[in-house]
Amino acid sequence: MRLVVPVSGSDPKTRLSSLLTPDERREFTEAMLADVIGALDAAGHSPAVVATAPVTCDAPVTVDERGLDSLVNGLLAETNGELAVVMADLPLLTPATVERLFAPDADVVLAPGTGGGTNAFVSCHPDFRVDYHGASIRDHRRIAREVGATVAEVDSRRLATDIDEPDDLPEVLLHSNGAAADWLRDAGFELVTDGGRVTVERA
Amino acid sequence: MRLVVPVSGSDPKTRLSSLLTPDERREFTEAMLADVIGALDAAGHSPAVVATAPVTCDAPVTVDERGLDSLVNGLLAETNGELAVVMADLPLLTPATVERLFAPDADVVLAPGTGGGTNAFVSCHPDFRVDYHGASIRDHRRIAREVGATVAEVDSRRLATDIDEPDDLPEVLLHSNGAAADWLRDAGFELVTDGGRVTVERA
Repeated sequence: MRLVVPVSGSDPKTRLSSLLTPDERREFTEAMLADVIGALDAAGHSPAVVATAPVTCDAPVTVDERGLDSLVNGLLAETNGELAVVMADLPLLTPATVERLFAPDADVVLAPGTGGGTNAFVSCHPDFRVDYHGASIRDHRRIAREVGATVAEVDSRRLATDIDEPDDLPEVLLHSNGAAADWLRDAGFELVTDGGRVTVERA
Repeated sequence: MRLVVPVSGSDPKTRLSSLLTPDERREFTEAMLADVIGALDAAGHSPAVVATAPVTCDAPVTVDERGLDSLVNGLLAETNGELAVVMADLPLLTPATVERLFAPDADVVLAPGTGGGTNAFVSCHPDFRVDYHGASIRDHRRIAREVGATVAEVDSRRLATDIDEPDDLPEVLLHSNGAAADWLRDAGFELVTDGGRVTVERA
């Protein structure tokens, strides 16, 4: 089965602009991507990266400027629906979590993200297609139902935690020792636990 | 093993005050509690509720005004560390998730919450104690290590999703059909997916 990690190579993670420069956002994106590829590799998979602009990583990279929906739906059409897609901003991913993603005996396995997204899926149904806008997990359940696919969902915090906003950064420092966590620590970020919410501050 | 669900009965969920009246916050708290008790029951457990003020639910209730740390540490002392604690604001909990919480063969099993909290634990170590302030998951890892307990963590989005703030409410509507989801729908809440983040609006 083809396994693809789509990533934005040009101007990634704009919602982190208040904390990181454009160059830093690219570096942090590549660090998260390294964590994702590392977890997939260690679980015995061979991911291919598809990026909107060149990125550096330990996997073959194809540059493709299509938007996410047309890219993934194009790949689903090419592969007759035998496709797995894992997002690049999941630095908490571990090999054990990857194994849980590929374990269920269902036509379509969905990994919900916090906030209604779909952070990963494994499809072996010829007619499954994606629609990442809005609360995509709801749309993907509906699409799978409409094409007659059986569906399973993976209950994983590590797969659910995509890193988009400053509020997401504590999760990396709390639950990972990978490349993204190292990058944040090297850049001077540390956890701050005064008051209610756990946040990060930059030294 | 004793299994306790602590809940605030007096003025719960104050961070939902912008959306819910005090009476509504109590009703919603009892609806979430019903979901938690239902999942624990269905997984074959017999939870006891400890509340700071009387609450209505399908489980025995003890009123105890102690703060969370002294309550749970008192129970750990009483039970020689043979104690499970599951928070009351986890309406996404399912019996399968509860089984995963009790499955690991470790002295202490921790279920991290989003934002550094500890949403559930199962202890069978006499010296394990809790400290819920700040990034408690980090403290609980440290405490377990210091007393020589083996530790496992459960990678579950359903256990990680405690409902505290308006931004958490979409998770209930997206991933549950239980009492809390029913309560929100009856109160007029629905998902709104315009723009970036999925939010809720009240009709």
